[in-house]
Amino acid sequence: MQLFYTPDIDPKLSQYFLSEEESKHAVRVLRLNVGDEVTLIDGKGGLYKAEINDAHPKRTILQINSVTTEYQKRNHFLHIAIAPTKNLDRIEWFLEKATEIGIDEISLVICQRSERKEAKVERLDKIITSAIKQSIKAYHPKLNAPVAFNQFVQQGFEGDKYIAHCAHGEKSDLAQSFKKHGRYMIMIGPEGDFTPAEVEMATKNGYRALTLGESRLRTETAALEACFEVNFLNR
Amino acid sequence: MQLFYTPDIDPKLSQYFLSEEESKHAVRVLRLNVGDEVTLIDGKGGLYKAEINDAHPKRTILQINSVTTEYQKRNHFLHIAIAPTKNLDRIEWFLEKATEIGIDEISLVICQRSERKEAKVERLDKIITSAIKQSIKAYHPKLNAPVAFNQFVQQGFEGDKYIAHCAHGEKSDLAQSFKKHGRYMIMIGPEGDFTPAEVEMATKNGYRALTLGESRLRTETAALEACFEVNFLNR
Repeated sequence: MQLFYTPDIDPKLSQYFLSEEESKHAVRVLRLNVGDEVTLIDGKGGLYKAEINDAHPKRTILQINSVTTEYQKRNHFLHIAIAPTKNLDRIEWFLEKATEIGIDEISLVICQRSERKEAKVERLDKIITSAIKQSIKAYHPKLNAPVAFNQFVQQGFEGDKYIAHCAHGEKSDLAQSFKKHGRYMIMIGPEGDFTPAEVEMATKNGYRALTLGESRLRTETAALEACFEVNFLNR
Repeated sequence: MQLFYTPDIDPKLSQYFLSEEESKHAVRVLRLNVGDEVTLIDGKGGLYKAEINDAHPKRTILQINSVTTEYQKRNHFLHIAIAPTKNLDRIEWFLEKATEIGIDEISLVICQRSERKEAKVERLDKIITSAIKQSIKAYHPKLNAPVAFNQFVQQGFEGDKYIAHCAHGEKSDLAQSFKKHGRYMIMIGPEGDFTPAEVEMATKNGYRALTLGESRLRTETAALEACFEVNFLNR
C-alpha cells in the first residue's frame, strides 16, 4: 500500500493534487495507474484512503474516498529533550526508532559538555517523516531547533518533568512510580553527562532526577530507553 | 579509565601480557606509561584492575592488582533470535544497543522471507566487543552463526519461548504476564514477517505468540523492544 505524507491536505475536500515531486514519484517510480489505491497521512492524525483519478507525472489527481481522524491517537504525551550527539547517525537513529515506538515532541538541547553545538533541523525532520510513513503513523512528531540548556530548562511544561543523569543521588524510577495517560518531559544529557550545576538548575525548575536502570547507556540509547519506558508503562 | 578486552586472561595469575596489537594501542595511541591504571574485562564476568609495569609497544606487561568475579552479573537470561536485516547497519545497531541495555545470547535465523541469507559473525561480534568495552560490561554476549528457521526452532531451550509476529491472533503480552529472573527466548522475524507455517512450527515447538505493542516496528526495532521489555521487567 503506497503511502504519501500530505501535511497540507484539506480534510473537507474530496480531491487532492500531489506535488510535482510526489506526482513524479507516483507515476514514474511507483508506476501507479488510474484506479490504484493509496493512503495519505497529514501528520495531524488524519489518515485518508484515496485513489488515482489522473496519473499525471507532474500533477497527479487523487480522489479522497475516506477520512479517519485521530488515527491511532496516542494515550499520553511524551516530550524528550536530548543533547544532539557528535555523530549525527546516532541522533538520526534515535529519531527514527522513537518515532516507530511512539513520541510526540523532541527538543535538541545544547549542554555545557555537548560535543555538538548545532544541528540541522530540516535534515533531521526528514528522518521523522520517513519513519512515520514506514510505520504508518498519522501524527508527525514535532522537532524543535537547538536551544541552550539554560533557556530550555526554564520553558514551561504542563506535566511530569525528569532529568536523567549519571551522577549519584536520589532518583525517581518509572518502574516504581508512574502515572498513566499523563504528560511527560524527559531530558537526556550529552556524552559527558549534565554538569552538577545543570542538574541543580533543572531541579530548581521542577525537574526530578531520573534513573534509566543500572547500565551505562550512550545518549541516544538512554533517550530511546526513556521513550520505551513511557510507552510500555502506558500500554 | 582505559579498558581492554582480554578473554584469554588467567584469573589466577598476577601478571598479564597485552597482545602485540593492544600493546601498540596502549603505548603509541593511548600513550600509557609505567604505573598507569587500566581495567580489563574477560567477557566471562571478570573485571580486573591492573597497572602498567612495562610500557613495551609490542609486549606491554600488566600487573593485576584486583579481580572482581561475576561483575554486575545479570539477574535473568535473555536470548534473542533475529532474522538478519538486508541493511547490515540495522542489525549492527541492534547488537550495539542490545549489548548496552543487556543481553546474553543472540542467534541469527534465516527465515523464508529473509532478504539477507547470510551474515559474517566475526564482523558482528566486533560490534558487541566494542559495546561491552564502551558500557563496561564484563560479560560478552554470545553471537551464533546463521541457521535456518526450521533448524533453529527445533533446538532445545530451557525457559520461556516466544515468537513475535505481526499477523492477527491471540498473543502473550509481557506487560500483562511475566516471571522475573527467568530464562527467555524471543524470536523476531524478517521485514516481511514470519510465514503462517513458520509461526505454526514454532508453536508446535513450544513457542508462544508475543505482541510487542500496537506499533508497526522494523525488525531491529522490534528486537530492541523485546530486549527493553525483558530487562525493564527484571529491574
